[in-house]
Amino acid sequence: MRDEKQKVVLIGTGFVGMSFAYALLNQNVCNELALIDVNRDKARGEAMDLNHGLAFSGANMRIYEADYDTCKDADIVVICAGVSQKPGEDRPALLQRNTAVFKSIVDPVVASGFSGIFLVATNPVDVMTHVVKTLSGFDSHRVIGTGTTLDTARLRFLLGEYFNIDPKNVHAYVIGEHGESEFVPWSQAMVGTKSVSRIVNDYGDRFKKTDMDEIGAKVKNAAQEIIAAKQSTYYGIGMALVRITKAIFGNENSILTVSSYLDGEYGQSNVYAGVPCVVGRNGVLGQLTLELTDEELSKMQNSCDILRQYYKETNL
Amino acid sequence: MRDEKQKVVLIGTGFVGMSFAYALLNQNVCNELALIDVNRDKARGEAMDLNHGLAFSGANMRIYEADYDTCKDADIVVICAGVSQKPGEDRPALLQRNTAVFKSIVDPVVASGFSGIFLVATNPVDVMTHVVKTLSGFDSHRVIGTGTTLDTARLRFLLGEYFNIDPKNVHAYVIGEHGESEFVPWSQAMVGTKSVSRIVNDYGDRFKKTDMDEIGAKVKNAAQEIIAAKQSTYYGIGMALVRITKAIFGNENSILTVSSYLDGEYGQSNVYAGVPCVVGRNGVLGQLTLELTDEELSKMQNSCDILRQYYKETNL
Amino acid sequence: MRDEKQKVVLIGTGFVGMSFAYALLNQNVCNELALIDVNRDKARGEAMDLNHGLAFSGANMRIYEADYDTCKDADIVVICAGVSQKPGEDRPALLQRNTAVFKSIVDPVVASGFSGIFLVATNPVDVMTHVVKTLSGFDSHRVIGTGTTLDTARLRFLLGEYFNIDPKNVHAYVIGEHGESEFVPWSQAMVGTKSVSRIVNDYGDRFKKTDMDEIGAKVKNAAQEIIAAKQSTYYGIGMALVRITKAIFGNENSILTVSSYLDGEYGQSNVYAGVPCVVGRNGVLGQLTLELTDEELSKMQNSCDILRQYYKETNL
Amino acid sequence: MRDEKQKVVLIGTGFVGMSFAYALLNQNVCNELALIDVNRDKARGEAMDLNHGLAFSGANMRIYEADYDTCKDADIVVICAGVSQKPGEDRPALLQRNTAVFKSIVDPVVASGFSGIFLVATNPVDVMTHVVKTLSGFDSHRVIGTGTTLDTARLRFLLGEYFNIDPKNVHAYVIGEHGESEFVPWSQAMVGTKSVSRIVNDYGDRFKKTDMDEIGAKVKNAAQEIIAAKQSTYYGIGMALVRITKAIFGNENSILTVSSYLDGEYGQSNVYAGVPCVVGRNGVLGQLTLELTDEELSKMQNSCDILRQYYKETNL
Repeated sequence: MRDEKQKVVLIGTGFVGMSFAYALLNQNVCNELALIDVNRDKARGEAMDLNHGLAFSGANMRIYEADYDTCKDADIVVICAGVSQKPGEDRPALLQRNTAVFKSIVDPVVASGFSGIFLVATNPVDVMTHVVKTLSGFDSHRVIGTGTTLDTARLRFLLGEYFNIDPKNVHAYVIGEHGESEFVPWSQAMVGTKSVSRIVNDYGDRFKKTDMDEIGAKVKNAAQEIIAAKQSTYYGIGMALVRITKAIFGNENSILTVSSYLDGEYGQSNVYAGVPCVVGRNGVLGQLTLELTDEELSKMQNSCDILRQYYKETNL
Repeated sequence: MRDEKQKVVLIGTGFVGMSFAYALLNQNVCNELALIDVNRDKARGEAMDLNHGLAFSGANMRIYEADYDTCKDADIVVICAGVSQKPGEDRPALLQRNTAVFKSIVDPVVASGFSGIFLVATNPVDVMTHVVKTLSGFDSHRVIGTGTTLDTARLRFLLGEYFNIDPKNVHAYVIGEHGESEFVPWSQAMVGTKSVSRIVNDYGDRFKKTDMDEIGAKVKNAAQEIIAAKQSTYYGIGMALVRITKAIFGNENSILTVSSYLDGEYGQSNVYAGVPCVVGRNGVLGQLTLELTDEELSKMQNSCDILRQYYKETNL
Repeated sequence: MRDEKQKVVLIGTGFVGMSFAYALLNQNVCNELALIDVNRDKARGEAMDLNHGLAFSGANMRIYEADYDTCKDADIVVICAGVSQKPGEDRPALLQRNTAVFKSIVDPVVASGFSGIFLVATNPVDVMTHVVKTLSGFDSHRVIGTGTTLDTARLRFLLGEYFNIDPKNVHAYVIGEHGESEFVPWSQAMVGTKSVSRIVNDYGDRFKKTDMDEIGAKVKNAAQEIIAAKQSTYYGIGMALVRITKAIFGNENSILTVSSYLDGEYGQSNVYAGVPCVVGRNGVLGQLTLELTDEELSKMQNSCDILRQYYKETNL
Repeated sequence: MRDEKQKVVLIGTGFVGMSFAYALLNQNVCNELALIDVNRDKARGEAMDLNHGLAFSGANMRIYEADYDTCKDADIVVICAGVSQKPGEDRPALLQRNTAVFKSIVDPVVASGFSGIFLVATNPVDVMTHVVKTLSGFDSHRVIGTGTTLDTARLRFLLGEYFNIDPKNVHAYVIGEHGESEFVPWSQAMVGTKSVSRIVNDYGDRFKKTDMDEIGAKVKNAAQEIIAAKQSTYYGIGMALVRITKAIFGNENSILTVSSYLDGEYGQSNVYAGVPCVVGRNGVLGQLTLELTDEELSKMQNSCDILRQYYKETNL
């Protein structure tokens, strides 16, 4: 009988990491989950709390606190660790502190002999994913960030509501930096195989371009709104991480706007950004390069310039 | 076409409540979830965060912040609200403050015309469930607490591990107060249809009574251990709440050790305690009264005496 | 507590009907399933055989043989009944016999007071769906046929394999008659938001137009191939019926190429054909009218002409 | 990345085998399914029909016709093949013909290098399972028959209905030969941890021993009733096969009344019969030997005597 273990290691048991872990358990996605945290007691307590729920899940899942050696035979290492801004700290200083934290993580993961896929959720996610690629020396297809996966899902959901159609039949993306400069390339937005711009054109009485813009803005501002109301955001991103994890374990070759390394696509190089990629068992199998308009390409340029600047500030 | 709405209202969006809500979403259990909290901004932010995850769930679920009117057509109202102990506050004072909080909740729920089932998770859960029964005037079969549901699931899980058998084939209960005086009536513990005491008798070299006692102690102390490590516990209880919710919506008539009102069973009256009950669409359908030994009956007496004393301290 | 029954009535317990019923049970889609057949013993036996499996399904599903009165409170009536060609019988004669069978079915269903959705699988499915609309007098949005749902799913599956991409990210349709004159409007075929013709253009070394044509032919000939090997085909269509049933019960508003009534779309009227429709709780909510090329429109004209001719031959 | 293939080979694509295959697909249990049949065209057609449904399943499953070499890396080989009684043929003659068929199957499976688990459904299932053990020379824990799995599930289901309780909380077994001499050891029947005989004793007004006997008879006669109505029975057994398959792949260590080799248990040796066993990744992990009454033991003796006689008639 073959070994069918599907093993995830989570590094960083804050609310984002634990929301991912709890969703993994509830959806019964893998059968081994190791938790790593600098605060080992915290990680041990979280493992115990999850193990309590396990009794209700019908799952055959091993959940435990561990050190970095456990990464050796893991399929996916998910990084949710990071420090937050101190009062008065500027962005470069924060980026450098987070880069130092990541060095203390990536080095022992690589040293363990890990040969799977890195999946990064720590913000600014595109920059921190780039940092992991640099620190690990892994091939870029094995280093992925959550990118604009959540933004894209949210966009489709809102468009589905707006057009009163199953979100699964809405095809649209949020791309670029997961942050201020992200944008919706509306030339690519479709319901079924009908472009949204054509729908707006044909049914101008019911559907309007201004509504599209509002939906785009709503998606971009959502995180800020949630943070204003509850200080932080973690449930949505937890489920986004599960979605990507499933695409990997299921070898789905699904198109997801993960943060991936651009090597000429859209005229961009040496940068990680959220773009539609084919995600399967071996990470990013390839990119689905969109035919953007000139205006969209210039937004992409802007977004990538920002990301390259941030990356530079890490001093890596 | 009939209306097939399955509506849950959650009152109290702290970590226990939200872990329940997040698990509901991940397991796709109902199609409408309203969140109520004295801090309406908090509840609104939580609803938004969940709604973000919704895009990944494939569920057709409405999640929103609401006021008490929303309870009118709810199927289940889950109460996770409560205040915590102030420094120097004694138990009666704390119980009275929590009772006051519950009055501010139960009154408007009842006033809304709610005709479904109350499910209580706030600790001390048996007492607070009793409080809800008293304040609402509802028939006791429609007022349920989480009781020893989680403890029982955990017990079976650990026994399953110990005997190397599917926990679904382990039949055993933790009963009484969800707290210090809870206990395992070992006379009722079975693997398949074989009693654990017989197994221990027949295979004394592999399985020992002392191991059983250790497992029992482990279950009782689990919450304290988790709290020591991470200050609080919520994932396990969140999934226990989902389990009970499923038994209700699925009209499963499942045997669960929810906190239910004793009316002569085990020689106990006028008290809520965790005992095996049949739970279905209308709440507690009936009790599966166990044939306890004299020693077990006296533990039950002790546990119920404690609960009656606590209830008295609420001054209701 | 509200009644949450989701009731399906299946008429015709041959292999197509029973494959649908068995898939319903395995996927736990509804909670009440009534079986009707002229051979009541057969229907009773099938209900018993399914009920045996029920013990393993974890479902709370009622399955039973019934007469037409049971349709009164059904949500969906699925018709899989029909007679097969006698040696020497021509098409009009066969159509007229099947129309007579359908009259003996639709009349008592309507008489029962049924107010849900008719879903037809009997071939030629577009014609027999039209027959049900005429006999029942129901509004066309409540009378649906399986149309080219299965062909479309198969097309996406094969394109997914060909392009090595999740079929859920392949958007393409088979439309028109479910039969010889059906066709793929390739102008509408996309991977993500990229048209297949553009992909073929850009990556001509890996992907070829001739391969597309081969895949289209494979889809059209699949049923014949299966019939050659095993005399009949039922598992695929059984799962297609479940897919449509889920779209209805889940109020998904999913785009499916069911057989629906054309009223001006594509220049066609008074005909049922497989076209992309929005399917939800109330049947066909609307059509997603594709922007076909002239060549595709003429194929559509041809396909609908054939269907109108067949319908005429029913003598209704 | 590890290989996580879960591969089933089905031998015999009649209705029992195909109902199993279709249920596997609908429940998405494994990711590789090979079909073997003496009629290769039939097997090829069945694979195509299932592949059609695959497009709706969301599963990543490979289904194909194959020859015996495919068993080499299979996890489970399920045998549903067999010949049926000719007019005038007596039992020994039939058993010998089926044994010859099994030889033509088991030899090439073993020759392929197969190192997984044999699961047999062909009737008389206990005898044919014994035949596979003898022909293969495999250790008995790796050769299993469906035994009284279906009968037991059905018994629990009916008792659940009778007592108005979740069947998962009903613990009872049908044991012995899957056939005329099978029986329910009522001393072992429980609701929760309360024995059925005690319930009948305590609530004699509502629950009666005669009703128990009726339920037992109903279970035993069910197959005959279904055969009278529809000539054969396959849906229930198809789902029973899936249940066992899941216990194996999930390494559940579940208690199931599969047909397993008795080596002293219940005083029986050298015989396969349906008894409660622990089933996991390596087949039968062990037996849960019930403490039967003398009367029950003598029924067991009778049932096993019959089975030993049948086995003798195979002339192996």
